[in-house]
Amino acid sequence: MDWIPTLPIIDEAARRIAPHAHRTPVLGSATLNAMVDAEIFFKCENLQKVGAFKFRGACNAVFSLSDAEAANGVATHSSGNHAQALALAARLRGIPAYIVMPSNAPGIKKAAVEDYGAVIRFCEPTLQAREDTLDAVVAETGAAFVHPYNDERIIAGQATAARELIEDVPDLDIILAPVGGGGLLSGTALSAHYAGHDITVYAAEPEGADDAKRSLDAGKIIPSVNPDTIADGLLTSLGEKTFAIIREYVRDIVTVPDEETIRAMRFIWERMKIVVEPSAAVAPAAIMHGRLPVKGERIGVILSGGNVDLGRLPW
Amino acid sequence: MDWIPTLPIIDEAARRIAPHAHRTPVLGSATLNAMVDAEIFFKCENLQKVGAFKFRGACNAVFSLSDAEAANGVATHSSGNHAQALALAARLRGIPAYIVMPSNAPGIKKAAVEDYGAVIRFCEPTLQAREDTLDAVVAETGAAFVHPYNDERIIAGQATAARELIEDVPDLDIILAPVGGGGLLSGTALSAHYAGHDITVYAAEPEGADDAKRSLDAGKIIPSVNPDTIADGLLTSLGEKTFAIIREYVRDIVTVPDEETIRAMRFIWERMKIVVEPSAAVAPAAIMHGRLPVKGERIGVILSGGNVDLGRLPW
Repeated sequence: MDWIPTLPIIDEAARRIAPHAHRTPVLGSATLNAMVDAEIFFKCENLQKVGAFKFRGACNAVFSLSDAEAANGVATHSSGNHAQALALAARLRGIPAYIVMPSNAPGIKKAAVEDYGAVIRFCEPTLQAREDTLDAVVAETGAAFVHPYNDERIIAGQATAARELIEDVPDLDIILAPVGGGGLLSGTALSAHYAGHDITVYAAEPEGADDAKRSLDAGKIIPSVNPDTIADGLLTSLGEKTFAIIREYVRDIVTVPDEETIRAMRFIWERMKIVVEPSAAVAPAAIMHGRLPVKGERIGVILSGGNVDLGRLPW
Repeated sequence: MDWIPTLPIIDEAARRIAPHAHRTPVLGSATLNAMVDAEIFFKCENLQKVGAFKFRGACNAVFSLSDAEAANGVATHSSGNHAQALALAARLRGIPAYIVMPSNAPGIKKAAVEDYGAVIRFCEPTLQAREDTLDAVVAETGAAFVHPYNDERIIAGQATAARELIEDVPDLDIILAPVGGGGLLSGTALSAHYAGHDITVYAAEPEGADDAKRSLDAGKIIPSVNPDTIADGLLTSLGEKTFAIIREYVRDIVTVPDEETIRAMRFIWERMKIVVEPSAAVAPAAIMHGRLPVKGERIGVILSGGNVDLGRLPW
């Protein structure tokens, strides 16, 4: 698997995105540490540009294109944070971005992407329509397709979050990340693997979208069918590339019921004074509710994003 | 006025609190910068221990007591962030804290102070009852009184926030802080004065509690009578000490209507992904709504705190 990002490739991604992305802070909570008898270090990707780690991968992908490849812009299918991330990265490079989005996507998500100057192409809310529309957009515009996660440039970009965390916090025992399509988790696992000392990587996943856990247990990708969770950033299935890395480098995946995620989300807002989206609270919830063996350990947790509709909070 | 904290005194406060307080991050928003055509640097004291800058002053006061002075603990009157801050600082030093609080204080505030291990003494919600109760507590326990703001140890402690901001962000043109009793503002003004280059200090105040603005204009302290604002951390009157510094070193105070404060608060939550309380949104609101001449300038803003009841948001 010679496509797997090497340490120099991740270093290069870090240099490439450095002029554009925030080096996000690492925050902690003495209250939480006392609660779980461990030291928790939160890597705040909710404070990243566009409010999510997704900007790292999108930025790395967009800026690694040659001028010729970039000339016709970039395209993707997403109604979530990847869409905004790709739109902003494209704007920073001065190229067009085409986003395929289901016609029933929330208005707030459409507006966010349009604010970054991207062109939206709506499709019916089915997988087939999404792929057909994307193919048509690419054929018509010549744009370069950037998959939300199953792409080594994306994986290398997402890996830079854990790379910074490991630089900032020495001697981590564990790193924990949420898993949806696996871009963040596979990148995190690679950076931990390259850290130069033993770091165990775990993932957390919503109980109502536990396809990654089942895939890891089964040794093959089990698609996400009718996921049901408040963590709307973690609905998708793993990709071949992300799964190959996760199988190799992730110790285990724990699942978390939504009520624990909501409680953790509120705790983080209330005590740490930062806004995290439900998908970002799944990993902290796994720690807070004793679903991982963390006692006495130093644990890094990637807080993946903070894009929430403040008019519709789950409490 | 030889009691005014000198630069060495503020440096000493910074060293004293360093083992206990967070060096809070400085965050920005590209969107906001584009909106106001300026560069804004937010010093995130909402991410400070107890969720507010108040921990700096309380920590400096508590740790500057001699062992003999500290032996009987500390006491104050406050139902707000100073109470929690003093309670935590006392716990860290291993001494008791006595907090005088009106009997009608919100349950959430009582619980927060008790969580930090302080002893609460309730009083009738009048100024007279508060002072009488405090006197009784001090007489009975021998505790050292630590005023919430009109105290040079508090002022020197609060000054460390702007000191860090100036260290982290070179060439600031302006620093903006909110003003209630004036502890944060006077400390901020001193650190700006000692910066070694010209920094203009402004303050922002709620329209419905504009006693500091009127005091500055009148050249004498005008007490805050029946203030009416959502910014519940900015209700108090200036003290003699804070006013003396503010008169000397603060250029002007601008007032902000609550609806602009609420809009700014929501913007900060939504775009910057951090939780700020209404009192912390008054200064950003002054910038966002054109109440200060900021175009082309580099402006530091102290985000004072993030203690909000998430069950009762103003939108």
